[in-house]
Amino acid sequence: MSDDGTQPSTGTDVGANFVDPGKEFSRDMRYITTRITADGRDGYPVEPGRYRLIVARACPWANRAIIVRRLLGLESVLSMGICGPTHDERSWTFDLDPEGVDPVLKIPRLQDAYFARFPDYPRGITVPAIVEIPTGQVVTNDFPNITLDLSTEWKEFHRDGAPDLYPKDLRSEIDEVAELVFRDVNNGVYRCGFAGSQESYESAYDRLFERLDWLTERLSAQRFLVGDTITEADVRLFTTLARFDAVYHGHFKCNRNKLSEMPVLWNYARDLFQTPGFGDTIDFAQIKEHYYIVHKDINPTQIVPKGPDLSHWLEPHNRETLGGHPFGNGTPPHPPLPEEVVPLSHWANTERD
Amino acid sequence: MSDDGTQPSTGTDVGANFVDPGKEFSRDMRYITTRITADGRDGYPVEPGRYRLIVARACPWANRAIIVRRLLGLESVLSMGICGPTHDERSWTFDLDPEGVDPVLKIPRLQDAYFARFPDYPRGITVPAIVEIPTGQVVTNDFPNITLDLSTEWKEFHRDGAPDLYPKDLRSEIDEVAELVFRDVNNGVYRCGFAGSQESYESAYDRLFERLDWLTERLSAQRFLVGDTITEADVRLFTTLARFDAVYHGHFKCNRNKLSEMPVLWNYARDLFQTPGFGDTIDFAQIKEHYYIVHKDINPTQIVPKGPDLSHWLEPHNRETLGGHPFGNGTPPHPPLPEEVVPLSHWANTERD
Repeated sequence: MSDDGTQPSTGTDVGANFVDPGKEFSRDMRYITTRITADGRDGYPVEPGRYRLIVARACPWANRAIIVRRLLGLESVLSMGICGPTHDERSWTFDLDPEGVDPVLKIPRLQDAYFARFPDYPRGITVPAIVEIPTGQVVTNDFPNITLDLSTEWKEFHRDGAPDLYPKDLRSEIDEVAELVFRDVNNGVYRCGFAGSQESYESAYDRLFERLDWLTERLSAQRFLVGDTITEADVRLFTTLARFDAVYHGHFKCNRNKLSEMPVLWNYARDLFQTPGFGDTIDFAQIKEHYYIVHKDINPTQIVPKGPDLSHWLEPHNRETLGGHPFGNGTPPHPPLPEEVVPLSHWANTERD
Repeated sequence: MSDDGTQPSTGTDVGANFVDPGKEFSRDMRYITTRITADGRDGYPVEPGRYRLIVARACPWANRAIIVRRLLGLESVLSMGICGPTHDERSWTFDLDPEGVDPVLKIPRLQDAYFARFPDYPRGITVPAIVEIPTGQVVTNDFPNITLDLSTEWKEFHRDGAPDLYPKDLRSEIDEVAELVFRDVNNGVYRCGFAGSQESYESAYDRLFERLDWLTERLSAQRFLVGDTITEADVRLFTTLARFDAVYHGHFKCNRNKLSEMPVLWNYARDLFQTPGFGDTIDFAQIKEHYYIVHKDINPTQIVPKGPDLSHWLEPHNRETLGGHPFGNGTPPHPPLPEEVVPLSHWANTERD
């Protein structure tokens, strides 16, 4: 999905609106549910080199897939195309690439891959999306399943030492936590920011901070959300926490306090940030640019804040004392591919570029 | 002046704009400079009961006058009318009063007092303003001089034990500090919030935080800005600091960090807040409502944030160890008049009303 959760459109409705006056924000959850599986039952078998994951670093939903691909070491079997932080009215675009064209798919707009499969595709052109390279057709943009399938269906191609992010015996607990986190936190921040009335804003705000307090309670005695290693549940919470102070606190009015003022969650988030595969996927400059420039109906000036000071992400978190090992019996991933490294200046300081 | 620094208009230009695209924010500093003096040289001698100070609690410039009047104990000689937090397109209004009419001046809009003296008054209808009660005419809205004149020209009517907020031997130092604070902080936050370009925003942001760092340095070894008692310089800095986390941090993108993340300034601000005459003039609910509802061109949804948690304003500040006495050889003011008490719920928690 687009990380704004609206429909950047299929070419007709120029100028998407994020806020529907008087109403609650409601996310269109109808995605392309085709799955890439080991047995290929939907016609798309797992196969090295056949697919390309399309993301935008700004988008928290795409960020999940970037992290999981890194943690599992799938870089060499599933390549990655990166859209720029600010999509136009029609689609996410490959404006960061030379000539503005994805070097593998040879298209300037992600919508080209959607239309290649569904000429009249009526919903949002969203990331993450997986595209079949030979046909140039989108296979899926169903973000909750994309990461789970990377963990379960692509197992044959995981690197040695890859963590099990969705272990069988913990799945029901992971699903349960992830569901609450999605409703109140991942999507909850959007419900604050795009609320069409004071009442719906306040209700989303209350649910958000009640859930964050609940998470604080849960994480005060255990290092990770479920079990004693990192799982899909941590990935999903992390991508929202990483954007909290930089964007959601001000832009979406999630301002009871900053993440950095909630010690347990702040230490938890920094623990993950400093774990290979998490922080090295975060591009604060692109994150800020995306939200503040694209959401013109809540930030009409499109001015991007210079703050906050982000250097504290690298400070000690002291979560090791709670026990647990991020990778269990496994190992951390290798460093990112050279072409996928986020420039230090984008996440270690307060500059935009 | 209106605390938004623009011209809420004289009846013709409906719908003021605060942001001038591509430009820097520029405050119109042409005020009505008539002065009320002990010798009455402008035709307006100091006289108990003759004038009425018109304010809005939301406005930082009016807040200065509210504080100084309280500190000097001028309540019984200079009455006070309070406009509501959200002015309409024509003028600040007395919408908090029964029937929406000021009980003394018998007018619904502050502009009526401006027009009574200048029928074609072309500039902003601003607070603070002082109105002559018998004629119903505005005398002055020249905010920098209003507080200084309360200190110097109204001396005969100060309460016993009133502090000298503008002592002769410190005036040049107070003026110098106040000038820097005005340019970079008091007005600097508006230059951030109403910047018409990324460049002018970033330049205002840099000046603001450089000045706050300079103030941190200055205040790390001395309790007050100038000398060892409270002065006009502290009043002027305080009214901006009091609004910093509640409004300027998010709404105006002054977000390198919150005031509460700058320990010296945060302790300094809480020291003043807890000093009689300062915190008891602050109405956080009205402050938030004003900025977020009136400035529709930077907050089109007009949704007012529920945060931040404001309870920390009442926590210990430990500034006493630096020496100095807020009131020197004098005494704190009496509690506010019953009709001027800000409801506890407006400043001691995060609720809007």
